[in-house]
Amino acid sequence: MRLRNKKWAQPWLENHTDLVIDQEHAVALKDNWQDLFAKKQPLQIEIGTGKGQFIIGMAKKYPEINFIGMEIQEAAIAVAARKADEDETSLPNLKFIYGDGAGVDTYFAKGEISKLFLNFSDPWPKTRHETRRLTYKSFLKSYQAVLPAGGEIEFKTDNRGLFEYSLYSFANYGIKFDPTGISLNLHEDADLMANNVETEYEEKFSAKGFPIYKFTGSFN
Amino acid sequence: MRLRNKKWAQPWLENHTDLVIDQEHAVALKDNWQDLFAKKQPLQIEIGTGKGQFIIGMAKKYPEINFIGMEIQEAAIAVAARKADEDETSLPNLKFIYGDGAGVDTYFAKGEISKLFLNFSDPWPKTRHETRRLTYKSFLKSYQAVLPAGGEIEFKTDNRGLFEYSLYSFANYGIKFDPTGISLNLHEDADLMANNVETEYEEKFSAKGFPIYKFTGSFN
Repeated sequence: MRLRNKKWAQPWLENHTDLVIDQEHAVALKDNWQDLFAKKQPLQIEIGTGKGQFIIGMAKKYPEINFIGMEIQEAAIAVAARKADEDETSLPNLKFIYGDGAGVDTYFAKGEISKLFLNFSDPWPKTRHETRRLTYKSFLKSYQAVLPAGGEIEFKTDNRGLFEYSLYSFANYGIKFDPTGISLNLHEDADLMANNVETEYEEKFSAKGFPIYKFTGSFN
Repeated sequence: MRLRNKKWAQPWLENHTDLVIDQEHAVALKDNWQDLFAKKQPLQIEIGTGKGQFIIGMAKKYPEINFIGMEIQEAAIAVAARKADEDETSLPNLKFIYGDGAGVDTYFAKGEISKLFLNFSDPWPKTRHETRRLTYKSFLKSYQAVLPAGGEIEFKTDNRGLFEYSLYSFANYGIKFDPTGISLNLHEDADLMANNVETEYEEKFSAKGFPIYKFTGSFN
């Protein structure tokens, strides 16, 4: 969902280049992202981080992991980063990239990321927009290029069509399905919910009783 | 679901050995099933045919295809076969095997079957019963042994856990996912419903508003 532009976003981002990295600097940091964080520890990213509820929740829950939220919408990344900045908990393990998911392999070196999250991505339901879906094969290729062998991908959505398509796309790409990594109604799976961190969308849609779909798999 | 025993079933089956083949005769017919039918034409089978609504519906809808329904429960196969026998439409393209799905590769030769259907199979939800599920890898291996390269498998169920498991099992076995072959709510997919033949369970569960899951894929 596209947010309305926010006048404060651009100047705020310009004043917080330590927290939010732009595309140009992201390219320059390739293979050296650990220098940005207080501790060298595994790095996990979310492509399309929206207003940041998920990645901030993850950073709080797992201080032993470094996180990066990527987002292409200026208004959204500004809201997400400001939320992180103003949080009562200091989060030295969280950064943001104001940039395009398609560029992930220009920002990161092979194996620099240990795990990748896609949450409630734009479904692009029309067949002619297939190549824009974040689970289309060209995107999967760029994710594989930054993950180590066996690197995990986790994907959640409430969109049935996108999930159906993505199962095909994952299988067709040769992504290994986790034996217990598929849920067609996440919020009724007690085992998976024990460690679930919700996104804004997820909170809203699951409250309405819509099923949330989840996939976990790994690249070769 | 297990049916109650029916007293008439055994004598009825003994009087209709032209329509319902027992395991011993099925083994003897390997590679010669076409001799049983009025016309030589592609042969498709359903493993676990229950009370037969699906396979009878298919046989009526596609006279240019031969069908076999396999079922291990005596009461169910007798109900199915009697229904076919008493149908107002003569169905020279439909036979039954009173036998075990695990034996499929003892009854048929490689490539003798062109397509295989699994509908509303027993979910065997306990992990220790995984090997009994009709989508467990040992069953997939026996299906592959009777299908040609590229032979299709279609699977429908209302059971979420079984479907989640089966997606993993299909992917892990290397079954090729059809680009538009997955539906997480079949009865809301107009394209797939246009040619859908319902089973007894499907009719009952979809009427209650439960989603029906469908997978279509092909073996190497």
